[in-house]
Amino acid sequence: MRKILMVFGVITLFIGCNAPQKSEKASNEVSKTPETNPENFGIVIHGGAGTILRKNMTPEMEEAYKAKLEEAVRKGYEILAAGGSGLDAVEQSIQVMEESPLFNAGKGAVFTNEGKNELDASIMHGKTLNAGAVAGVTSVKSPIALARKVMENSEHVMFAGEGAETFAKEQGLEIVDPSYFYTENRWKSLERAKEREEVELDHDGQASLYDPFIKDSKFGTVGCVVLDKEGNLVAGTSTGGMTNKRWGRVGDAPIIGAGTYANNASCAVSSTGWGEFFIRGVIAHDIAAMMQYGGISLQEASQKVIQEKLPEMGGDGGIIAIDHNGNIAMEFNTAGMYRAAMNSKGELTLGIYKESE
Amino acid sequence: MRKILMVFGVITLFIGCNAPQKSEKASNEVSKTPETNPENFGIVIHGGAGTILRKNMTPEMEEAYKAKLEEAVRKGYEILAAGGSGLDAVEQSIQVMEESPLFNAGKGAVFTNEGKNELDASIMHGKTLNAGAVAGVTSVKSPIALARKVMENSEHVMFAGEGAETFAKEQGLEIVDPSYFYTENRWKSLERAKEREEVELDHDGQASLYDPFIKDSKFGTVGCVVLDKEGNLVAGTSTGGMTNKRWGRVGDAPIIGAGTYANNASCAVSSTGWGEFFIRGVIAHDIAAMMQYGGISLQEASQKVIQEKLPEMGGDGGIIAIDHNGNIAMEFNTAGMYRAAMNSKGELTLGIYKESE
Repeated sequence: MRKILMVFGVITLFIGCNAPQKSEKASNEVSKTPETNPENFGIVIHGGAGTILRKNMTPEMEEAYKAKLEEAVRKGYEILAAGGSGLDAVEQSIQVMEESPLFNAGKGAVFTNEGKNELDASIMHGKTLNAGAVAGVTSVKSPIALARKVMENSEHVMFAGEGAETFAKEQGLEIVDPSYFYTENRWKSLERAKEREEVELDHDGQASLYDPFIKDSKFGTVGCVVLDKEGNLVAGTSTGGMTNKRWGRVGDAPIIGAGTYANNASCAVSSTGWGEFFIRGVIAHDIAAMMQYGGISLQEASQKVIQEKLPEMGGDGGIIAIDHNGNIAMEFNTAGMYRAAMNSKGELTLGIYKESE
Repeated sequence: MRKILMVFGVITLFIGCNAPQKSEKASNEVSKTPETNPENFGIVIHGGAGTILRKNMTPEMEEAYKAKLEEAVRKGYEILAAGGSGLDAVEQSIQVMEESPLFNAGKGAVFTNEGKNELDASIMHGKTLNAGAVAGVTSVKSPIALARKVMENSEHVMFAGEGAETFAKEQGLEIVDPSYFYTENRWKSLERAKEREEVELDHDGQASLYDPFIKDSKFGTVGCVVLDKEGNLVAGTSTGGMTNKRWGRVGDAPIIGAGTYANNASCAVSSTGWGEFFIRGVIAHDIAAMMQYGGISLQEASQKVIQEKLPEMGGDGGIIAIDHNGNIAMEFNTAGMYRAAMNSKGELTLGIYKESE
């Protein structure tokens, strides 16, 4: 039986080698795969960051989140342990969360101002630097599967709107009626966001962004990063976007460099949080660049970006990341982030809140 | 009268201080404006990179391009010289090119597979790291103006499709009939691309991407980067996308970090070329990150990214960039790039081809 660690207070931890990986300053070898130990594989997932407080959570809800996070991380872990590809692990871990109404991705996605679910996703492979992304799809059951099809079966990286749906159909992906994504909770969030907006619009049009309840229901994303046994880093992210969003708003989840980035020369990153700040900060690529050009560790780079640079801009959220030695980071500046990780020894880490318990 | 230099063979040149700007390794001060000399302002523009060969160009066409490039760069220069904002300079320089049928942006944009013009643009300010981007608009006369409205008048960074059009109308921007963007040349490019595709699809679905004629007509973008007298770096990019594109393809022009990036701590960059590779390489942010974390000069970073990293991935294209000392780069790995620059002394540089003349 596997040893299971339930660590809630640890934000950043190491799996495998603890030594910070130093890379050449301004190295050219962007996607070169460093020497790896095939035993050093690992997986990290997140189910969104936000004002997640224990006092607002019932024991039943907490158990439900933990169980689903464990199911999702084990799904990817089993694929990696069997020598499967990082892409399969990322896609299938994320699909477990897309299919759960607990997370703002796939089923359970939040509603736009028009009462629709518009889904975004992206995926990137660290060896080839190939990537796929979709924005604003409304009838594709698994947006992360579509992002992978874009990467593997088109000469393009990103498709948006109806065009992305057409491509999904051509690729034979499962198409669902938009009602598949409906959940009562998310619908209520939209109603509450609209009411709040009506009340507050007079003095501050952006007020709802600063209301913890609305902000939590506005944001949220799922993501997965892995190091597979071949030494490849892969990252993926999937989201329902932002409650009450308008004007075809695109967040960071489908933006390569912001919501998702993977490069065998540095790390794989998936973001969650207030997407606008993640786009402006090019957060996922910034962490990789600080490692690669600045020669600092994944842990240091993640802390600097999430605890210093992001709040300096006024943004909040978190990231999960893994580097080519299997070091991982789960860094956030919000009250909580749904997260889980497993290392090559099969040790499981699960977390929701920031504070220790 | 201003001294005018017509330099065609110079790819990278310096304005103002020649000393490479060293920055602290892994500095946290992402957007801190370094000490600047108000005399050290400057502007660089591009009108697209591609297989631009002198043998394919008539003297009349060459003169037409040079005249329009000079008009565009002088437009921004006059704003900067008068102490105007970098945002105004970038927006208005780009608008000169958007309104010209010579460039693949605004009027003269290429056609999608469905025979439509779908326009993308983005803009970013290096002091605030604020940014705005739009993808797939079909009736907004100036996409760069819309990107600026998104940045300044919304809490978001990126809008796509119909939602972006709605926002444009709400903002009172000039709306035109989609036929405004029509030019006969671009329509012929679409027809030729479709014929070529039909012929070549049997042996290689991507063949048209490797045909110089089609590739040139497929890609192309306009962009502008400036350093204003307050020491602020601003970058903007506008494009008609890709001839014969399908599935709501989004290129790099509206992607912050890929097509456009500005940060007072490093540089402002606008990209042009095969967009998919610019997204995967997060090209604009990569140049800034190599400067900031790797401590190399703008020239070195631009060369490494465009002459080494981009071709290694299989991509081509170019960038224009300017740093906080007024050093500029106009780097491309294609046969040519339409480009122009002016420094604080009013010296003008114009270029089309790579080879000296």
